[in-house]
Amino acid sequence: MPELRKDPITGRWVIIATDRAKRPSDFIRQSVALPAVRVCPFCYGNESKTPPEVLAYRNSGGPNQPGWRIRVVPNKFPVLGIEGELNRQGDGMYDKMNGIGAHEVIIETPEHEQSLPEMSEKQIEEVLWAFRERVNDLKRDRRFRYIILFKNRGESAGASLEHPHSQLIALPVIPKRVKEEVDGAKQFYDFKERCIYCDIVRQETTSGVRLVTETDRFTVLEPYAPRFPFETWILPKHHESHFEDADGATIQNMAWILRSTLRKIDKVLERPAYNFIVHSAPVQESQLPYYHWHMEIIPKLTKVAGFEWGTGFYINPTPPEESARFLREAGLG
Amino acid sequence: MPELRKDPITGRWVIIATDRAKRPSDFIRQSVALPAVRVCPFCYGNESKTPPEVLAYRNSGGPNQPGWRIRVVPNKFPVLGIEGELNRQGDGMYDKMNGIGAHEVIIETPEHEQSLPEMSEKQIEEVLWAFRERVNDLKRDRRFRYIILFKNRGESAGASLEHPHSQLIALPVIPKRVKEEVDGAKQFYDFKERCIYCDIVRQETTSGVRLVTETDRFTVLEPYAPRFPFETWILPKHHESHFEDADGATIQNMAWILRSTLRKIDKVLERPAYNFIVHSAPVQESQLPYYHWHMEIIPKLTKVAGFEWGTGFYINPTPPEESARFLREAGLG
Repeated sequence: MPELRKDPITGRWVIIATDRAKRPSDFIRQSVALPAVRVCPFCYGNESKTPPEVLAYRNSGGPNQPGWRIRVVPNKFPVLGIEGELNRQGDGMYDKMNGIGAHEVIIETPEHEQSLPEMSEKQIEEVLWAFRERVNDLKRDRRFRYIILFKNRGESAGASLEHPHSQLIALPVIPKRVKEEVDGAKQFYDFKERCIYCDIVRQETTSGVRLVTETDRFTVLEPYAPRFPFETWILPKHHESHFEDADGATIQNMAWILRSTLRKIDKVLERPAYNFIVHSAPVQESQLPYYHWHMEIIPKLTKVAGFEWGTGFYINPTPPEESARFLREAGLG
Repeated sequence: MPELRKDPITGRWVIIATDRAKRPSDFIRQSVALPAVRVCPFCYGNESKTPPEVLAYRNSGGPNQPGWRIRVVPNKFPVLGIEGELNRQGDGMYDKMNGIGAHEVIIETPEHEQSLPEMSEKQIEEVLWAFRERVNDLKRDRRFRYIILFKNRGESAGASLEHPHSQLIALPVIPKRVKEEVDGAKQFYDFKERCIYCDIVRQETTSGVRLVTETDRFTVLEPYAPRFPFETWILPKHHESHFEDADGATIQNMAWILRSTLRKIDKVLERPAYNFIVHSAPVQESQLPYYHWHMEIIPKLTKVAGFEWGTGFYINPTPPEESARFLREAGLG
C-alpha cells in the first residue's frame, strides 16, 4: 500500500509509492527516447495486458475485446490503491495516511500512431465524454476529495508509453496547489463579488493582446503571468465550477477548440512534448460561484532548475503577448 | 528591462525576461548534451568575456586577470536588472513591477573539468565564504527582500555551461514557496514554542532511519515527505535563521559535510545531474526563532509530469528510509 506523507513545514502531501520502490540502479542511465515496446498493451488484441476495463465506447466486441473506440482501464502500476481505509495517523512528529485513491488510463484511440490533434473532432469529443463519465462515477465515492485529469505527451513531459492516452487520479485530499487556486479565486470573489476567471475572459477578449482564439463558448489565451513559454489556457465563457457538469454542446465545442489549439501548438513548436491538465473544483463541493473550471496546456520547452525548485518563482523567456501572436498567426481556426 | 508579473489567482510572481525573449525556433530541437563551448568564459585568460568581477579570491594577478581561486561576476544574461526603481503598477486587472534584482555567478574554480565534490575541502570552504560575502554585501541594498543561492549541475538540471559554478539571485519580493516555508515554520512555533527544524533534527538523529550522517554541527538526512528520490537536506544543529550569519567554524564544517554528501550521491547514483539550494530567512528580517537555514539537494532522477504541475502533489518512488540507507552504506564519511 502506498503511503501519503505530509511535509510538516509546508503541509504538502507526497505519495511515497512503496509498491514500486526504486533502487539507485533504476535511475542510472535512463534512456532518452521512449523504450521500443514490442507489445503495446493499449493496442487491439492486447486487452488482457491491462487490468479489466472500467469503461469502453465500442463499435463491436464484448468487454476487454477489440472493437472499442475509447477504453478506460485502471493503471497497471497505480500510484494509489483503491481498496481500504485512509487510516490517518501520526508517525513521531509527522503525519501520514494510507495511499487510497484511483489511478486510471484513458486510451484515446486504438491507433497507436495517431496523436490527439490528428484525431477527428468526434473522437476527441468521445475522449472528453469518457473524462466526464469517469469523474461522475468516481465522485460518488466520498473518500475522494479531488479528481485530476491530465495528459503527458512525449518522454520529456513524463509519458512512459507512446500509444495516445490520458490519465485520471482521484485523491483523498485536496492538493496544495489546487487549494491555493481555489482560495485565491475565493478571496477575489469575497472582495469583488465576481468570478476572477470571468473577469480574465472579459479583459482578454476585449484587449486581444494575449488572445489566441475564441468561439461562442470558449476563450483560448496566454495567461498574464505564465510560468512557461507558450503556456495556454482554455476557458469556458459561461461560468461553471466543475468540468464534469459540462453539457453536450460545451463538450462538443471543447473538442473543436482543443483540437484546434493543440494543432496550433504542434505547428508553431513542431510537435513539442506537453502536459495538459483539467483544473476543476473539488468534487465533493457543490457549484461554486468563485471557481471556474478550465484547461491548462504546458508545452515542455524549458528546464526547471534550482531557482524554480527553491522559490516557486518562474523565469519565462517568452512574453505571453508574443506567444499569443505566434499561435494566432498559425491559423487553423 | 525584465518585468515581474503577478498571477492574479494564486499571487505567484513570474519573471518575464523580455530582454532575452525567445521565439519558437529557439525551443525546437534543443540539443540534449551541453553545447561544446569553444571558449569557456569561466576559464583563465577569458576574464574579459564576463562582466567585471564583483569579488575574487586570488593567488596573484589584478582584477579580471588570471590568478584567482574563486571569481564572482554578474551574469552576462541576467534575469533581473540591477538599476532602477520597482515602479509597482496596475495593468488592467493585473499587477506588475520592474524586474529589479541581482543575478551573479560564482565561478567555483579555475579548473574547467573539476566538479564540486572533487575539489579540496579548502576550496569548497572558499566557495561558501564567497556565498556568504555576496549575500552580506547585497542585503545592504534595501530593495532586495530575498536572496537565493543555488547550483544546477548537469544539463537536465538546467545548467547551460559546464565549468563549475553556482548562482545567486536577489529578488525584490519574497517568493511564494519561501513564504510558505517560513509561514509554516512560524505556525508550528506559535503552537509549540519550538523551531520545527530543531525538532526534526532531534527526531531524525534519535530514530536514525532517515539519517545519512552527522557531525558536531550538521545533520544530513532524507526528509520524511521528500518530493524527489534521494532528496537530501543538510541542516545545522545549532539554531540559526540566516545562512549569511554562519561563523567560521560552521562554514568550515559545512565544507566537509557538503563535500562528503555530494560524494555519496555521486557514488550511489553515478554522478547524477542535481540542484542544490540554500534555504535561508528573508534578508531584511532580523534573527527569527522559528526559521532555520539549511541546504536542500535534489538529484534530477525523475521527470515532473502533468500530475505534479496540476496539483503540486509529488509522487516519489523511493521511500526516504531506503535512500538514506543507500547513502549511509556509501561510506565516505
